[in-house]
Amino acid sequence: MRDIALPNSTIRVSEEQKMDYRRIKDQDKDRTIADDVESLRGKSHSGSPSSVAGFGGNSNELSKWKLKSVVTLALTLLTSSQAILIVWSKRAGKYEYSVTTANFLVEALKCALSLAALVRIWKSEGVTEDNRLTTTFDEVSVYPIPAALYLIKNLLQYYIFAYVDAPGYQILKNLNIISTGVLYRIILKRKLSEIQWAAFILLCAGCTTAQLNSNSDQVMQTPLQGWLMAIIMALLSGFAGVYTEAIVKKQPSRNINVQNFWLYVFGMAFNAVAILVQDFDAVVNKGFFHGYSLITALMILNHALSGIAVSMVMKYADNIVKVYSTSVAMLLTAVVSVFLFGFHLSLAFFLGSTVVSVSVYLHSIGKLQR
Amino acid sequence: MRDIALPNSTIRVSEEQKMDYRRIKDQDKDRTIADDVESLRGKSHSGSPSSVAGFGGNSNELSKWKLKSVVTLALTLLTSSQAILIVWSKRAGKYEYSVTTANFLVEALKCALSLAALVRIWKSEGVTEDNRLTTTFDEVSVYPIPAALYLIKNLLQYYIFAYVDAPGYQILKNLNIISTGVLYRIILKRKLSEIQWAAFILLCAGCTTAQLNSNSDQVMQTPLQGWLMAIIMALLSGFAGVYTEAIVKKQPSRNINVQNFWLYVFGMAFNAVAILVQDFDAVVNKGFFHGYSLITALMILNHALSGIAVSMVMKYADNIVKVYSTSVAMLLTAVVSVFLFGFHLSLAFFLGSTVVSVSVYLHSIGKLQR
Repeated sequence: MRDIALPNSTIRVSEEQKMDYRRIKDQDKDRTIADDVESLRGKSHSGSPSSVAGFGGNSNELSKWKLKSVVTLALTLLTSSQAILIVWSKRAGKYEYSVTTANFLVEALKCALSLAALVRIWKSEGVTEDNRLTTTFDEVSVYPIPAALYLIKNLLQYYIFAYVDAPGYQILKNLNIISTGVLYRIILKRKLSEIQWAAFILLCAGCTTAQLNSNSDQVMQTPLQGWLMAIIMALLSGFAGVYTEAIVKKQPSRNINVQNFWLYVFGMAFNAVAILVQDFDAVVNKGFFHGYSLITALMILNHALSGIAVSMVMKYADNIVKVYSTSVAMLLTAVVSVFLFGFHLSLAFFLGSTVVSVSVYLHSIGKLQR
Repeated sequence: MRDIALPNSTIRVSEEQKMDYRRIKDQDKDRTIADDVESLRGKSHSGSPSSVAGFGGNSNELSKWKLKSVVTLALTLLTSSQAILIVWSKRAGKYEYSVTTANFLVEALKCALSLAALVRIWKSEGVTEDNRLTTTFDEVSVYPIPAALYLIKNLLQYYIFAYVDAPGYQILKNLNIISTGVLYRIILKRKLSEIQWAAFILLCAGCTTAQLNSNSDQVMQTPLQGWLMAIIMALLSGFAGVYTEAIVKKQPSRNINVQNFWLYVFGMAFNAVAILVQDFDAVVNKGFFHGYSLITALMILNHALSGIAVSMVMKYADNIVKVYSTSVAMLLTAVVSVFLFGFHLSLAFFLGSTVVSVSVYLHSIGKLQR
């Protein structure tokens, strides 16, 4: 019975999503070109027949699928090499530089890279309404919100260590996976199929399993305040991600480099405040670049590129893809670390990786079947 | 595209299964009443329209579903209390009795219980072709095989401990889950959907995760011989289970108590040989019941009832249900042990239980969608 009903339910889902995007369209006061929404629908739901009718056919589908794959792959590789750089820098010695200046430089570099990309586009395509840098207050007013959410999260991070140790925090951070899924559903109002929800729970359980070690059981003794803070931080982080996706997708035809530019301008501003509050004395006395090394420079470059990759994934894929991408990166890092640093993989790592792999498979199956 | 193709593929699967049962029917030289096969199909594939047409309709479906649920629940509860009895007996002291005599008594008790059930049936329904105890050589010739396979497996069990310690063996035993799935597919030629295969891999990973402790990583140092023996034992155990299912399902209308009686007669015979070989001196010098206690008696009763429940699950459900049932029982045991013995549950246990729960859910979803 159920099998036969499936195509109908698929169509029903498509109808609901059409309504969601119409809502986004209505909110979009700048531009309400139907093609934008149509093209977005076409990209996200390659299984539905309407996508072919609604847009220009399969070649466009394919190029969008390719773009989505490339940004996802880039994010996975960058996140994975990020973790390896962190291990490398820890082996090389302690962090001697001030973290706030590094964060500021990451935002500045992202800003510069976005501008450079825009200049190239202006030269080849000319300045259009989609790629002009000038903006309205309505458009730009939402851009500080993700940066503000991340700032609050980073401030809370100092307090959570009163209740949880660092390895325990690594494990609690997997709550981000669940919070992202829940907020993605609630705020972006986009459906995950039953199988995809099951896959998402597995992703969280699998990542946590892969990180288990002999001290992990201490997490179970985390006091209630620690759990609450971990949940709040997961919600802040998930909310920032989902909000960024809402911003970059609100105007699908708006150039991503312009959107990134404005996101990162506010990132720079918030991090400048952080330098003033936390490291003003150190910067004045020892200099802005005190303690920087080759590894520091590489880490800043990597963080900047990863940040841009995250934005691209938000624009051309979604938060769910981002979560899968960074989770798989975590596993990749561990495997690469075996060869680079002689790490040993635990049985828990193999079990967790198996569960994550099945989760990735189920997510793709679930997409096809909805 | 895929969504629309699903109903077709479902019909294709049903056709294949029809062929499988026809093959079973052809092999069945004793009785080839089409109704048997039809009723079996009706039970196993409640989703296909042909089951309603082929058999008497939904009330029969429902009573079969109830029977299946009751035997599955019984197996889960019995397996769970079995493990609790083992913990209890370990706390009470060492095993003082000879294990071979206990095993023999388990088989004898199962035999007696099957006979008692048959006597009741004969009184109420009279002796029919389906419930008569007399049998042909053709029918009875396959019955010693499961008992022989279990005997070989039990003999190998002594040798594997040269390579793996007891907790490591507990972890390697989870390979049984995979071997049962593979042999179920190959020997019984019954299909599992893609989602059900994914669920089965998760069941294995989840059960193993739930059993992880600080020494589990030693399993990774198991030498090749240890792995090979573990795989061979898993295959023997899986083969014995699948073969038992083939036997009890070959003649669907044959009374399960008759089938059990003959299975257990050979079980008694093989265990009598084991007493002679391993414990002859102890039994002659100290007596057959030396070292028995109340717990021993309860364990024998529990093993006998569990054994009968396994047969019932094979007859009215299948090996896959059996594997899920005993896996869930393992988790139940751990939870009950918290209250009974003050055990602590590890983070790994919670993660493993989550994965097993999702696996059970996916298995049922996968059934609906095939």
